[in-house]
Amino acid sequence: MPPRPNADPATPLPEASVPRWDAELDVVVVGMGAAGACAAIEAARAGARVLVLERAGGGGGTTAVSDGMMYFGGGTALQQACGFEDSVEEMTKYLMASCGPEPDEARIRVYCEESAAHYDWLVELGVPFKAEFYPERMLSPGEEGLTYSGNELVHPFRDLAVPAPRAHMPQKEGQAGAFLMQKLCAEAERAGSQVVTNVLCERLILDTRGRVVGVAGTLAGEPRHYRARRGVVLCAGGFVNNREMIRQYAPALRKARFRASTEGDDGRGIRMGMGAGGAAIRMSMGSVTLPFYPPKKLMRGIFVNRYGQRFMPEDVYQGRAGEIALLQQEGRVWLVLDDESFERPVFAGGEIHAAETIAELEAELGFAEGTLQSTVALYNAGAERGEDPVFHKASEYVAPLRTPPFGAIDLSWDKAIYAAFTLGGLATDTEARVLNPDGDPVPGLWAAGRTAASISSPGYSSGTSIGEAQIFGRIAGRNAAQATRAED
Amino acid sequence: MPPRPNADPATPLPEASVPRWDAELDVVVVGMGAAGACAAIEAARAGARVLVLERAGGGGGTTAVSDGMMYFGGGTALQQACGFEDSVEEMTKYLMASCGPEPDEARIRVYCEESAAHYDWLVELGVPFKAEFYPERMLSPGEEGLTYSGNELVHPFRDLAVPAPRAHMPQKEGQAGAFLMQKLCAEAERAGSQVVTNVLCERLILDTRGRVVGVAGTLAGEPRHYRARRGVVLCAGGFVNNREMIRQYAPALRKARFRASTEGDDGRGIRMGMGAGGAAIRMSMGSVTLPFYPPKKLMRGIFVNRYGQRFMPEDVYQGRAGEIALLQQEGRVWLVLDDESFERPVFAGGEIHAAETIAELEAELGFAEGTLQSTVALYNAGAERGEDPVFHKASEYVAPLRTPPFGAIDLSWDKAIYAAFTLGGLATDTEARVLNPDGDPVPGLWAAGRTAASISSPGYSSGTSIGEAQIFGRIAGRNAAQATRAED
Repeated sequence: MPPRPNADPATPLPEASVPRWDAELDVVVVGMGAAGACAAIEAARAGARVLVLERAGGGGGTTAVSDGMMYFGGGTALQQACGFEDSVEEMTKYLMASCGPEPDEARIRVYCEESAAHYDWLVELGVPFKAEFYPERMLSPGEEGLTYSGNELVHPFRDLAVPAPRAHMPQKEGQAGAFLMQKLCAEAERAGSQVVTNVLCERLILDTRGRVVGVAGTLAGEPRHYRARRGVVLCAGGFVNNREMIRQYAPALRKARFRASTEGDDGRGIRMGMGAGGAAIRMSMGSVTLPFYPPKKLMRGIFVNRYGQRFMPEDVYQGRAGEIALLQQEGRVWLVLDDESFERPVFAGGEIHAAETIAELEAELGFAEGTLQSTVALYNAGAERGEDPVFHKASEYVAPLRTPPFGAIDLSWDKAIYAAFTLGGLATDTEARVLNPDGDPVPGLWAAGRTAASISSPGYSSGTSIGEAQIFGRIAGRNAAQATRAED
Repeated sequence: MPPRPNADPATPLPEASVPRWDAELDVVVVGMGAAGACAAIEAARAGARVLVLERAGGGGGTTAVSDGMMYFGGGTALQQACGFEDSVEEMTKYLMASCGPEPDEARIRVYCEESAAHYDWLVELGVPFKAEFYPERMLSPGEEGLTYSGNELVHPFRDLAVPAPRAHMPQKEGQAGAFLMQKLCAEAERAGSQVVTNVLCERLILDTRGRVVGVAGTLAGEPRHYRARRGVVLCAGGFVNNREMIRQYAPALRKARFRASTEGDDGRGIRMGMGAGGAAIRMSMGSVTLPFYPPKKLMRGIFVNRYGQRFMPEDVYQGRAGEIALLQQEGRVWLVLDDESFERPVFAGGEIHAAETIAELEAELGFAEGTLQSTVALYNAGAERGEDPVFHKASEYVAPLRTPPFGAIDLSWDKAIYAAFTLGGLATDTEARVLNPDGDPVPGLWAAGRTAASISSPGYSSGTSIGEAQIFGRIAGRNAAQATRAED
């Protein structure tokens, strides 16, 4: 059976096949989300002639539809203003412990080292932050600038690194992400970048030595070829909206009913990089959020798996809860409560079961006899002393489950809200260069944002995506601007 | 900082850059392990002029250093001769249940449908099998032809599919894998395939339409270019011996001290396919064996994780035990025994702890108070009735743990023997065509063996690697031989 004649659309185009160049610049940036805008700003400031190609009608990307939360630390001005101490060392320790199982130490270190200065850079750009701390470990309804968005206060992380709140929120009622992107896009243009919208980029253009020298795409259906004398920066989002790629690379994410994304997260940027020899790594990984709280009172319950066993401290961040539940427990989890701790989750949905005794609840849930009883007995024994010696939940959420009726909220993937986006993408180094499977750079190519593999795998703390996008986007833009010209 | 000037060595070569063709044939097969030999046999039998390029001094590949076990079923002549019933349907059900979490149903179905006929094909080739069943669920020291090599008898699989033994062993004292490969290689040459050894293949050659039309490599350091008029079949092994690829794609496998592989499993075949647009999928997956038995008596113990919880039935196959322990329990597991069940594992190694009571053992292992005691109490409660209501271990291995002293064998990754190989590779369809990330075939390219992503992810049953290699190798060879010629 002969193969169908359609090769991968992301196959690179040889320079010799370019009919004519529609434009010729130093640096071409593909995509104008947080990463692309930051790359464009830095490349233009470094003196390069920069062209940004955006497929949508305007810049913004997925950051513009997000809450705009950014994970920064190491002692930012905002952390200091709110009275929190932090250091590069403690932030690095936290990310190294939480971004596992196999964290990218070199990139994490750069992320932490650049973090405080990058915060100042944003402020200088006119992004305001209110120096007020919101203690609730969830999105503030108000304008507070700083909160926790990870597992800094949760076992084992609180013992591995000195906790500090690191989620920085722009001061803006409503959609802070869109506001943030307005500022970044305006600065990119002000710095001299040229922006063309409605261009769908599809292939990289390589010279005979394999160096990336341009981008091919279409504008209103018409082919376009843009020459990049110094380099191309791919900032075109993730792939959670590419059904076939999800099926092939990250099938477990199909169980998450919601996707934190825009239409642009269709994997095109990653595919273009792969076509030029880039390695796509951590492709099965995703950030998965299970918003089982608010109300936080629900943290007083215990999560169990289908064997009636606990598997995590219940004061985990929503993102970690979702990852563990979906990826390690096959999306089959229940939150067990007593009459004192029971409430309905505000967002998570789920299916509610109730019974007069734990033994009856165990039978109602179809668990083997003795399993849930044994788990509750062990938990209660510690809880009587205000302790959770097994999973080390913070004592404020520890109380024996003893007041009937008892309840269980089935938060399995087919009953509850899980929201996912992809963390896999092109392998990059601390200079944001795209790497091939040997770990060597693909000449002329940089990547940032969700087109690059995340520092998390998964172990996600909210705000690192926009944080990584900005910090490595800036590095990519600077490096591309300073690269040797292709013709030299 | 400019990039270093070395692009991915697997970047495809444009046909126009080929200085001259050293040979021109219909089908070029890269690698002569089980997959390559089978592809060569079928392509030659279909009338194609076939060239096999092998990097080593002779054919054999990783199959030649293996025990030669092959997973076949659906009612093979050997199964029937040994008095076992099996069907395509039950074999499919078993593999669909065990090759999870996301099995490739279409390819599993073909594997099962082709299985019995392929067994006959091997017999016809002169591979002998002794019609005797070995009941021990491990490698026989004798010449018995049939045994169990997976979790067919283990919960939940025994309830999801009618169990049948499916591991087929050639009748040959000593290294049956080498013997099997002698037969396959001899037949490939007899059928008319030309074999060139000591050729290291490095790049695919593409025509201007993106179709694969040849292979570039080196013979004794000299460049060689081989034209494949109908197609190229990549059968060049996995990547467990490529340190950088393991670091990038499958870092968890670094914890396994042993690798089931040859030097050739360096990822070159996968890389060549990626360079031509093929998607490399399931790249983080591996088969991991923890040989905690023999002796099988050890299955009477209970495996616990660092929370003192059980996590699998202890009568699982060694392969499943290794996967679960290393990939789901972070390689931190202990086998808890009493004086009746204790023995030293023959192969696994491990560190032995002992105590007079379970409470003392719990403290000795550093588990939280009450955890192991609670687990043993729950297990013993069922075991008193000869049952394991939680994990459903077969009753012959269920007995209460009550005779002191109690022991625990620390079988964590840094104390015990884990053996791994990669299961990730190029995405292929039921026709063994290499697929791009859209799911479309890369024209002119087929793959089989460990160069292709496995049907398992992981959920490995021993013998499926050599089984897949042969069955999809044959399909690849047939299809390549019948493909339209590139120049037509």
